[in-house]
Amino acid sequence: MISVIKKATFIVLAFVVFTNCESKKEEKVEDTASEVEVKKEEDPLPSWNDGDVKKNIMGYVQDITDSNSPNFVEEQHRIATFDNDGTLWSEKPMYFQVYFMFDRIDEMAKEHPEWKNKQPYKAVLERDMEALKKQGMKGLLELLMTTHSGMTSTEFEDIVSQWITTAKHPEKDKLFTELVYQPMIELIDYLEANDFTVYIVSAGGMDFMRPWTEKAYGLPRNRVIGSTIKTEYDYNNGKPVLKRKAEVDFIDDHAGKPVSIFKYIGQKPIIAGGNSDGDLEMLQWTDSNDFKSLKIYVHHTDSIREWSYDRNSMVGKFDKGLDEATKKNWTIIDMKKDWKVIYPYQLEEK
Amino acid sequence: MISVIKKATFIVLAFVVFTNCESKKEEKVEDTASEVEVKKEEDPLPSWNDGDVKKNIMGYVQDITDSNSPNFVEEQHRIATFDNDGTLWSEKPMYFQVYFMFDRIDEMAKEHPEWKNKQPYKAVLERDMEALKKQGMKGLLELLMTTHSGMTSTEFEDIVSQWITTAKHPEKDKLFTELVYQPMIELIDYLEANDFTVYIVSAGGMDFMRPWTEKAYGLPRNRVIGSTIKTEYDYNNGKPVLKRKAEVDFIDDHAGKPVSIFKYIGQKPIIAGGNSDGDLEMLQWTDSNDFKSLKIYVHHTDSIREWSYDRNSMVGKFDKGLDEATKKNWTIIDMKKDWKVIYPYQLEEK
Repeated sequence: MISVIKKATFIVLAFVVFTNCESKKEEKVEDTASEVEVKKEEDPLPSWNDGDVKKNIMGYVQDITDSNSPNFVEEQHRIATFDNDGTLWSEKPMYFQVYFMFDRIDEMAKEHPEWKNKQPYKAVLERDMEALKKQGMKGLLELLMTTHSGMTSTEFEDIVSQWITTAKHPEKDKLFTELVYQPMIELIDYLEANDFTVYIVSAGGMDFMRPWTEKAYGLPRNRVIGSTIKTEYDYNNGKPVLKRKAEVDFIDDHAGKPVSIFKYIGQKPIIAGGNSDGDLEMLQWTDSNDFKSLKIYVHHTDSIREWSYDRNSMVGKFDKGLDEATKKNWTIIDMKKDWKVIYPYQLEEK
Repeated sequence: MISVIKKATFIVLAFVVFTNCESKKEEKVEDTASEVEVKKEEDPLPSWNDGDVKKNIMGYVQDITDSNSPNFVEEQHRIATFDNDGTLWSEKPMYFQVYFMFDRIDEMAKEHPEWKNKQPYKAVLERDMEALKKQGMKGLLELLMTTHSGMTSTEFEDIVSQWITTAKHPEKDKLFTELVYQPMIELIDYLEANDFTVYIVSAGGMDFMRPWTEKAYGLPRNRVIGSTIKTEYDYNNGKPVLKRKAEVDFIDDHAGKPVSIFKYIGQKPIIAGGNSDGDLEMLQWTDSNDFKSLKIYVHHTDSIREWSYDRNSMVGKFDKGLDEATKKNWTIIDMKKDWKVIYPYQLEEK
């Protein structure tokens, strides 16, 4: 079932399980959205509070799009790359793709009565995180491959599409796609309006994201880069399919991000945004652009409206990145201070 | 030096060397271009002779872009993928990337006097194809890795850019980028004008193509997909680079083409064009699109103006593909009959 993993670490999943225990109970959401004054005509970033961060971002965009500026960047080089988990949508208490994995195990267990007594499945079915932890990386990988391979690319897409439109976040009781960040969606729109080409560059599964990213962020499939498993072409008697193999192809995290950016995009971004140490190499890579560049970190500081975590979190650990961003004066978004609302549904609740 | 190759075959290079002997002496080019009448205002494909092939192509595009047609395809699904070697530019007597490899060996030999007596380098330096053939796959791979890895991505780009603007085809005495097919450039332009997104999907090296494809075909870097070697991020004391490793990452040929199309583009093409059996899987994949699709094969039939070859050629072998295309009534371009000129410089010579 499980092929040999060439990568030494499988970070995404490693973090995932060992984190459930540390998740904070959600406190009551205070509707700070009441302060929002949307002036769409004039303000492209209405859900951002005025302050240095908003000023930095807009000042940068105005500068590099001004053909009279020494920092002018032509349209074909206006590339922006954003991490997904924790940067464009929430990632607590576990990466949302892990909820997908757990739900798949529940569903598949109907055909596998033996899983009730077989690890690592038993631990998932019982949501026994301590038992799951004991299964280690090998158990996690088995769960990943069981739920993400063995079907065709089309079948997997259908499974994800079905799940993403029905499954709800256990604490927020919202669809996962409702837990995207309104201010970041405005930022993507603002950049596209200024002739940027915006990509997602995520450690999450590429094929897990593509079915819903267009609707959630307005980003088409070919602008979504992520971790991949291998696929294999099968002629299938004239109805060709791509079969998803139980083998890791590429882990799009840390040093993998500059590699995938080079491969898929072919040029360095001038804007990169992330929220964790896994994004640091992407931001360094962007920082080395000959063009003036903008490096953005989302700092999770809002324990009321979202979650508050950084240096000691297993999911979205932000430690080295925080030091380097501070030292180099990169743009650090303080979610609590800089964002009027977190999620789009809070706009409507106003 | 050479890492383990996971792919069983390394087709691109295998063909390369064993083919030199069978290359035909170029006959004098007759200027059949004199018959060309460019009517740019009305005819988007002026270098194509009237006939079934031109009618097929234009009829298809008119059909799927007509919002009143039952076959109408919205813009975001108008994806076209073309092979490069033998489809957009010539590939005889050897793939042009092999000339690059040989020239690099000549250049690098200045620093390696020992190569004069060391295989496989000696064979290349002496252009002794029989001796080179004896080095087999292992020798070829060593040559590939010696010339394509060990530097940064930027350094490799500079090397290719320098070579492509100076090196000349040994028989045609033209820059290699002058040996692109004028009718195919018109086809790319015609498709883009009809809101297609056109990609190259080639077994050739992605990083070998990207430095010159925008100028040659008007296709930007992120629309050029090809075979890759692994790269590795190096922080390099704050001036990060990607180092090219002596390890194959992906062979974008045969069944690899649908795989790469799925990965880079995320949806099936509605038009695919190739010239060899290595493109067959891409055309089958395209043929399975729920939208009406167009499968195009370039058949090399012109021994005077280009080269004539198909079933028995090592480079660009066109055998199974020819049978399947004939059986399924795909569009087969007869270069001799369907193209008024082959290369852009023949237009100017009129």
